[in-house]
Amino acid sequence: MINTLYLPELREMLETNDRAGLEDFCTALHPARTAEFMEGLTAEEAIRVLEFAEPQLRSEIFSYLETDHQVEIVNTHPPEEASELIGGMSTDDQVDLLQDVDDELVKEILSHLPPEERRDVMRLSRYPEGTAGSIMTTEMAKLSKDLTVREALGEISRQAEELETVYCLYIVDEHDSLHGVVSTRQLVSAMGKSSKRLSEIMDTDVLHVNALDDQEEVLRKMADYDMLAIPVVDDELCLVGIITHDDILDVVVEEATEDAYRSAAVQPLEESYLRTSVLTLSWKRGVWLVVLFLGALLTTFALEHYEAELERYVWLVLFIPLVISTGGNSGNQSATLVITALNRDEVHLSDWWLVAKRECAMGLILGGMMSVMGMIIALMKAPTLYSSLVVGATLLLVVMAGTMIGSMLPLMFKRIGLDPSLMSNPFVAGIIDFLGIVIYMTVAGLLLGMPA
Amino acid sequence: MINTLYLPELREMLETNDRAGLEDFCTALHPARTAEFMEGLTAEEAIRVLEFAEPQLRSEIFSYLETDHQVEIVNTHPPEEASELIGGMSTDDQVDLLQDVDDELVKEILSHLPPEERRDVMRLSRYPEGTAGSIMTTEMAKLSKDLTVREALGEISRQAEELETVYCLYIVDEHDSLHGVVSTRQLVSAMGKSSKRLSEIMDTDVLHVNALDDQEEVLRKMADYDMLAIPVVDDELCLVGIITHDDILDVVVEEATEDAYRSAAVQPLEESYLRTSVLTLSWKRGVWLVVLFLGALLTTFALEHYEAELERYVWLVLFIPLVISTGGNSGNQSATLVITALNRDEVHLSDWWLVAKRECAMGLILGGMMSVMGMIIALMKAPTLYSSLVVGATLLLVVMAGTMIGSMLPLMFKRIGLDPSLMSNPFVAGIIDFLGIVIYMTVAGLLLGMPA
Repeated sequence: MINTLYLPELREMLETNDRAGLEDFCTALHPARTAEFMEGLTAEEAIRVLEFAEPQLRSEIFSYLETDHQVEIVNTHPPEEASELIGGMSTDDQVDLLQDVDDELVKEILSHLPPEERRDVMRLSRYPEGTAGSIMTTEMAKLSKDLTVREALGEISRQAEELETVYCLYIVDEHDSLHGVVSTRQLVSAMGKSSKRLSEIMDTDVLHVNALDDQEEVLRKMADYDMLAIPVVDDELCLVGIITHDDILDVVVEEATEDAYRSAAVQPLEESYLRTSVLTLSWKRGVWLVVLFLGALLTTFALEHYEAELERYVWLVLFIPLVISTGGNSGNQSATLVITALNRDEVHLSDWWLVAKRECAMGLILGGMMSVMGMIIALMKAPTLYSSLVVGATLLLVVMAGTMIGSMLPLMFKRIGLDPSLMSNPFVAGIIDFLGIVIYMTVAGLLLGMPA
Repeated sequence: MINTLYLPELREMLETNDRAGLEDFCTALHPARTAEFMEGLTAEEAIRVLEFAEPQLRSEIFSYLETDHQVEIVNTHPPEEASELIGGMSTDDQVDLLQDVDDELVKEILSHLPPEERRDVMRLSRYPEGTAGSIMTTEMAKLSKDLTVREALGEISRQAEELETVYCLYIVDEHDSLHGVVSTRQLVSAMGKSSKRLSEIMDTDVLHVNALDDQEEVLRKMADYDMLAIPVVDDELCLVGIITHDDILDVVVEEATEDAYRSAAVQPLEESYLRTSVLTLSWKRGVWLVVLFLGALLTTFALEHYEAELERYVWLVLFIPLVISTGGNSGNQSATLVITALNRDEVHLSDWWLVAKRECAMGLILGGMMSVMGMIIALMKAPTLYSSLVVGATLLLVVMAGTMIGSMLPLMFKRIGLDPSLMSNPFVAGIIDFLGIVIYMTVAGLLLGMPA
């Protein structure tokens, strides 16, 4: 979101070189809000404003700018300056930003970072997208179990500036192997007995995730256990990073958006709707529109196959859209219910038979309702009561096909290792459009008799 | 999720009255995990296990049980015992639980709670669902600005047990008016100068929400500013509660699920898919299926209106499903893009003209593509090259109708104060099914000539 409220004032201050005003602008607000007010500036102007902030604050404001604004600033400034700005960001934000920067420039920027930080960035950027490793940060508090409460408080007070969170402290041995966790809440509660050692108050049953675990798994654990941060370990159970509450919130919002796009057959966007060009958007939509179009062609071929029936009973045509859209709607409902339940870990593959029975029952109930309504309507158009049975019977069968296919396809996709949400609305609807026509024409043929 | 791993052991321990084993079970794990292992027990058994935990821990484990399990326990036990369990929960969890309990019983349970807690519960339960007030808790740290850093640390160490979070401390005056915020991080960093007063280190630019603000607004602020907790104030700017990171995570997950259901025309479920009865599910689906069915009837009436054309040019029928599904798909894409952008605050009502121009351009591009593909196919079925133009022109117009209607309807809904996500896939598709048929038949009539 671009907030243009202060833009004129900011530009005015830059023009008159109003040091006091600009320093005040940089320090008075939460860095995120400062960044919001700066989104409308050019990269040139933004850098000039940032120079009025202390280095640490400068990095912090910079880290709240939107990624494309950050990239622009990095691209238009000397690598040393850029690496200074980047140096103060947390490792996960650094990795996010550098992904969008030219490889050559990344190398140069990295060469200006302290060696340890450089190593962290390079290690993190190796984790595949969507894994715990790709969203974690390496700035966590690692303490020895022999510290006393007082020493621990002193230690985190010294490290506070560099840490992503000072509220979860991890107890590790010399190999970084994770032995326990102590919260600052526990430390503060134990301040009365400040010579107690961490080993006496630490929790040894530490919930953690592996760096290669899916980010959905991280979300599930953090949400179920109301965690502020979760430690990330490697295969040797050594602590390699943490994921904090704000990172996981970003993940949920991002995943929800991707799911929404997917359910409408749009390739996920890298930027916001208005910032994505019409051509890029057309491409991200066109790909799937073409796929769905080719799928929908099947309905044309199916109808062609039954052209003789259609010529003889033209009134059947009146109900084609009604029949296929009703089947598609019931299929979408089932697919969405099952995909949501799978994502929330409420349904497992082993439940497939239970799901099938339930969807079959719902297909009968819902299909029955639609069937009665359809027959009443059909009575007005069909030549005889008997022939209106075609519409009634078809609606029952199509709704049942919808519930069964809509519920079973996501489970099958999961079984063969594909993301079940790929089987979302437009695809389920497409399959049922085709099936619906086949069912409709077959029922018509059976009840009304085929033309020769 | 029910974890049945330890059920036999738990039941065995209950039978043999294994005090040491059960005490160990209650204390060894994170309360959330203990609760998970207890989900399979009956209310009777669960209560017996909980008796082996200290009161505070007992409440904590209880608060992690799923709501329907909690309700069962509350319903089958004396109100005094139930109110003891409930007393240890945070106010927001209390309100959530009591919403599902019989009014008579609620009154009795409330009468056993300390007066202050009772007042808090009653106040919170008055906020409408979906507002900040309905998800906040009242257990926050309120401190006076005259306290020193040392005194503040002592104070929160004393209060730690009762507070939802000890990491954000709110500075209020005697009327609870909010003056500033201090994080425990700042306190810990300032430990070296522990006689400093809070007024010297507090942040006075406090981001807050009003108790009646929508929870989406809360989410937006907390996500944008990476906040651990956000203070909630009333109209007089007095601090009435806080919302913490775990509450807001629950909100996002819940809203994402509701949006998914809505996009498939399913009324949101109160419980998980497998725990909802087939009849309830059928009702929650049936309502919308009927609405959509009645809408789809319009396609039947539209086709009836053009029956003469259809009898004369039966080959037109072959493309009906293709035409309407392509229009529906492009409409869904536009609707989802605009709804998502509105929800993420990336598009505002004032951008409507920009959105309209962009969608018009995309409609031309995508419609053009579909039009060319459609004509190639139509050439094989239509009697003449000229008549295949009907399919081509229709596809262009239908895709454009899809992008325009799909993008403008959510904006219109927002304008008149309705939730734009109501205009989601099945509804947009239904509208475009009808329009698609009207467009198709009108184009056919114009190009091929109407029958008398």
